[in-house]
Amino acid sequence: MKKSLIALAVMAAAGAASAQSSVTLFGIVDATLAWGKGSTGDRFQVTNSGYNSSRLGFRGTEDLGGGMSASFWLEAGVTNDDGRGAATNTNNQATGGAVAGIGGGQGLTFNRRSTVSLAGGFGEIRLGRDYTPQFWNLTVFDPFGTVGVGTTQTLNSIITGATAVRASNSIGYFLPRMGGLYGQVQMYLGENAQNGAATEKDGNGWGLRLGYAAGPLNVAFATSKTKYAAGDVKQANLGGQYDFGMAKLQAHLTRDENGAVDGAGWLIGGLIPVGAGEVRVAFSQYETDAGAGPDPKSRRIALGYVHNLSKRTAVYTTYARVRNSNGAAAALNGATTAANSSSSGFDIGVRHSF
Amino acid sequence: MKKSLIALAVMAAAGAASAQSSVTLFGIVDATLAWGKGSTGDRFQVTNSGYNSSRLGFRGTEDLGGGMSASFWLEAGVTNDDGRGAATNTNNQATGGAVAGIGGGQGLTFNRRSTVSLAGGFGEIRLGRDYTPQFWNLTVFDPFGTVGVGTTQTLNSIITGATAVRASNSIGYFLPRMGGLYGQVQMYLGENAQNGAATEKDGNGWGLRLGYAAGPLNVAFATSKTKYAAGDVKQANLGGQYDFGMAKLQAHLTRDENGAVDGAGWLIGGLIPVGAGEVRVAFSQYETDAGAGPDPKSRRIALGYVHNLSKRTAVYTTYARVRNSNGAAAALNGATTAANSSSSGFDIGVRHSF
Amino acid sequence: MKKSLIALAVMAAAGAASAQSSVTLFGIVDATLAWGKGSTGDRFQVTNSGYNSSRLGFRGTEDLGGGMSASFWLEAGVTNDDGRGAATNTNNQATGGAVAGIGGGQGLTFNRRSTVSLAGGFGEIRLGRDYTPQFWNLTVFDPFGTVGVGTTQTLNSIITGATAVRASNSIGYFLPRMGGLYGQVQMYLGENAQNGAATEKDGNGWGLRLGYAAGPLNVAFATSKTKYAAGDVKQANLGGQYDFGMAKLQAHLTRDENGAVDGAGWLIGGLIPVGAGEVRVAFSQYETDAGAGPDPKSRRIALGYVHNLSKRTAVYTTYARVRNSNGAAAALNGATTAANSSSSGFDIGVRHSF
Repeated sequence: MKKSLIALAVMAAAGAASAQSSVTLFGIVDATLAWGKGSTGDRFQVTNSGYNSSRLGFRGTEDLGGGMSASFWLEAGVTNDDGRGAATNTNNQATGGAVAGIGGGQGLTFNRRSTVSLAGGFGEIRLGRDYTPQFWNLTVFDPFGTVGVGTTQTLNSIITGATAVRASNSIGYFLPRMGGLYGQVQMYLGENAQNGAATEKDGNGWGLRLGYAAGPLNVAFATSKTKYAAGDVKQANLGGQYDFGMAKLQAHLTRDENGAVDGAGWLIGGLIPVGAGEVRVAFSQYETDAGAGPDPKSRRIALGYVHNLSKRTAVYTTYARVRNSNGAAAALNGATTAANSSSSGFDIGVRHSF
Repeated sequence: MKKSLIALAVMAAAGAASAQSSVTLFGIVDATLAWGKGSTGDRFQVTNSGYNSSRLGFRGTEDLGGGMSASFWLEAGVTNDDGRGAATNTNNQATGGAVAGIGGGQGLTFNRRSTVSLAGGFGEIRLGRDYTPQFWNLTVFDPFGTVGVGTTQTLNSIITGATAVRASNSIGYFLPRMGGLYGQVQMYLGENAQNGAATEKDGNGWGLRLGYAAGPLNVAFATSKTKYAAGDVKQANLGGQYDFGMAKLQAHLTRDENGAVDGAGWLIGGLIPVGAGEVRVAFSQYETDAGAGPDPKSRRIALGYVHNLSKRTAVYTTYARVRNSNGAAAALNGATTAANSSSSGFDIGVRHSF
Repeated sequence: MKKSLIALAVMAAAGAASAQSSVTLFGIVDATLAWGKGSTGDRFQVTNSGYNSSRLGFRGTEDLGGGMSASFWLEAGVTNDDGRGAATNTNNQATGGAVAGIGGGQGLTFNRRSTVSLAGGFGEIRLGRDYTPQFWNLTVFDPFGTVGVGTTQTLNSIITGATAVRASNSIGYFLPRMGGLYGQVQMYLGENAQNGAATEKDGNGWGLRLGYAAGPLNVAFATSKTKYAAGDVKQANLGGQYDFGMAKLQAHLTRDENGAVDGAGWLIGGLIPVGAGEVRVAFSQYETDAGAGPDPKSRRIALGYVHNLSKRTAVYTTYARVRNSNGAAAALNGATTAANSSSSGFDIGVRHSF
């Protein structure tokens, strides 16, 4: 929750010299009771991150003078229903994930973000593990922020690779503020030995995002490509939001390629303020050309309500239902469902940030 | 060490709006030289947690007004002799533990506690990973607090399952203060797919604890049941303490079932303040009906002394000896001993909290 | 970066009683673009710790009165290019490392240091995981501090065991300040069962370091022995520095034994202040008697420049080249090279401490 940061009051104690400095400790603990129903298996869980992703982080910024600054950001995912951390990926490839069966041994990693930056009038250069440009439109223009049972169906895509949401070993550049224009480019590395092997470029890639925000309007476009010998992964998406005051309308479109398989999807939804709370609604669809027959397609409708007890603490609930056709079998909240059957899910929880 | 919390002075910096907030960083680093002797193998270790369990934690409470509050608690075990964290368990089942051989790769998890709470006049609702109600009487009414070589023999029980001490995926309710009465109930989930498999309820369970504390007296009762297709696990225990001023007398009784095997044990002991220190003594026993012959039985006697250098720092030493009969082979401090042989252990260490 | 500590302003809130206390949160995030070239494979990485080792730590000291103090230090390595932690070693043996293939699942451990200390006029007693005495001369008297592509070739030695840099389960003693004299001894344990097995003492060892620093001069000697049934590991080294004002001259010598294999090496180099920056240069060599033929030998030359943007933030670059002879095949920055071929590496990065 970027809205509720805590800046620790700090005093520097550095040998002879003394200088003012700061580090911010921040986090979210979001616990969720989650029910999932499907034709072949239901599930009931005390889980996490039904409204905002649970996390623990450390960050800070140093003013270097002359308009320059240096900053760091270390942010770990926290599976607060059972106390685990979350795995990261070392090389933007399947081989870079966690050992199989790590179970309750999964410790904290800064899987969500782990960066150091230099910024100034030229913009910002950022090194490390960060979100990919191709992810932002899916989450910023999803009323459910790609979290919980209401998550846009477009995230449940054919892009299952390591760089759909974040990439390691990345070099990013962010434009400085120029009116309403914003943008970023990112290059990331698979870091394989360059020895002529067919897979030597696996996990190398780039992403680009450009947007414009002014008054009630915010629109952005992104595209990306990640190399794999088994077939390159490409994403392109477009998203937007218009704030009518009494409601925010949000929508996005996405087109994906994963080797020979294509996928496409869209979302339309909105956010409606109601007193100290907010109603959230979204309708999304994703279809692929996998298989020989008609294109498997899944449609999700989601309706939710968030009630803010304070700026830091909220209770929330979400209901969602996914309908499958042409062989698709998407299911919600850990349920399983047969091809062409439906699945539904229900979240109720509490989000506390610090 | 709840007695030496550190509240960080914090200032909120939250965009336009600004609000006061707080997070507490706390921990214990307890290092122990530990000797163990047994008939088939001795061991000498620089280990940890001889007096209090080593840990690093983050917690905070937000006043929501109207007598309501929200709070979080993230607490990680720390193996400070070698720098590891400690594994948690994801599903209250054997399958939810760490991958075998994780060794020096075991990172920090919030295995000790990972919760978010809403509290008010109605009491407290707590979600996440927490101590089970059935554990408290064994540790609160053990002069050695189930830590170090003096730990009550009743903890070394047939209840080796994942919920003997803590449970993940839990929903807890704590009574508000009502005179001397206190109590809690907890339900926890194995989170298996509900698909008709025999094990679909494995790891589901509940616990209940009720107690009364007034003046020098504190007594409590607890009971629990955790479901497993291989045989349910049930615990019941009763404990109490009476503070005579010159000494605290402590005792507890426990009866366990693990499928077809029954176990039972008891402890009697006490704490005697001596200047800036405290003498600790306990005599405990546990016996089971495992096997065809007479019931294997282990008796432990433990004697220790803690010397407080300050509220935060103490040095301590403990000697314990366990005697086995009817085929039991309990051993102390990493030693191994033959059936019906004895084992002894000795701890000396320093506990520093922050 | 010990030069840029951050002492958190803290207020104790301990039930009825209240006392002042402190904990320091500190760290380094150092990101590096690293190129490596070799005859059989090149590599390009966004990696970490090209200038200083990335880390996140917590530490504090409590004044116990009467010249006594207690302190703790928990410091985790951070692989900030991808967000991982780093594994520790539990028992100073190969078996105590991380499970194979832990990949992106490697969580934070306090692998760098995890200690609790009591100190006073007598010196300091320190328990836990710490640097070994035998490591210090190699890093203190290396212009590149054993970090990045310029790291002394003497660290790339036959001493690949678990105690070359740090040891777990250690008991250390540090001399109090006595004029220019300084020193430490350390004992560490493998913690195997003492049951007569040939390997029961594996991982047990000790190290000793004695030095003298006065005015521009600093010299130190260290020696160590770690027991393994497969062959004991012994190290001895000598290092020194002389500060001429316009430059610091550094040199060290090392002799190692790993069972039947001997190794020896040396470094000569220096640090030259240039305005807000520093030029670093080193020439180092290591040779072993492994194999039947002439002794494999590797020589590295390294040249670097660090530019300080502030006390906390620096940009840096290093070039190094290693030449191999008599069958050696040392390579830099993840490159691979054939026996007797050269390898070169180049780092450019930013180091931010907090």
